[in-house]
Amino acid sequence: MNALFEKLTFNADGLIPAIAQQHDTCEVLMLAWMNRAAIEETLTTGHVTYWSRSRQKLWRKGETSGQTQKLVELRLDCDADTLLLLVEQTGAACHTGRRNCFFSAWRGGERIEIANPIMNPAELYNQP
Amino acid sequence: MNALFEKLTFNADGLIPAIAQQHDTCEVLMLAWMNRAAIEETLTTGHVTYWSRSRQKLWRKGETSGQTQKLVELRLDCDADTLLLLVEQTGAACHTGRRNCFFSAWRGGERIEIANPIMNPAELYNQP
Repeated sequence: MNALFEKLTFNADGLIPAIAQQHDTCEVLMLAWMNRAAIEETLTTGHVTYWSRSRQKLWRKGETSGQTQKLVELRLDCDADTLLLLVEQTGAACHTGRRNCFFSAWRGGERIEIANPIMNPAELYNQP
Repeated sequence: MNALFEKLTFNADGLIPAIAQQHDTCEVLMLAWMNRAAIEETLTTGHVTYWSRSRQKLWRKGETSGQTQKLVELRLDCDADTLLLLVEQTGAACHTGRRNCFFSAWRGGERIEIANPIMNPAELYNQP
């Protein structure tokens, strides 16, 4: 795995942006950030782990909500400062309960919601 | 357009990451960065303009190479700190002459190139 880290360019905070894409439909699900530990854990376990900038800790996607991402393939871009994660997404990638986070389109000078939740977000984060 | 800028969250450098996706095939082409001026120009002209962090200037995609991106739709994510640009890409999005920048996959502990150039990069940037 060191060969990978020798190639990657992290930002001043030690982070690299990672785009998550559903591997078979090509739907772009979300963008989050990874540090070296998150990448190591993701490659080792096969379950996608990010770095939460707001909580300043590893964010094991789906740990609370159950909406996990199984890694299918990790790709890097030409200058090795962005990752593309092909994943198998369980349920909703977005904390709003929508399948993906990009449900707002800018049309005619205003923000239009183009997707509805597929799950109740209250149920995602208030599990018994 | 002010309503859009009121929603968006830029980083400390005044930038926001933008994922470019081919609108019909859903292929993820590249990730680059935009500032407010780049977004304004993109929405006004319909041609995607980024902010080049290396050159510290507006980067009118395809201005030198001819490999332009026509904006089909701009979307934002749930916390409005990432853009998804649905585009019509002319030719190669990547400066290496490949259709997209994510041609390196991490497989079996090594980097594998999974796509070949569709154009000669020397021709993209040394036009008469």
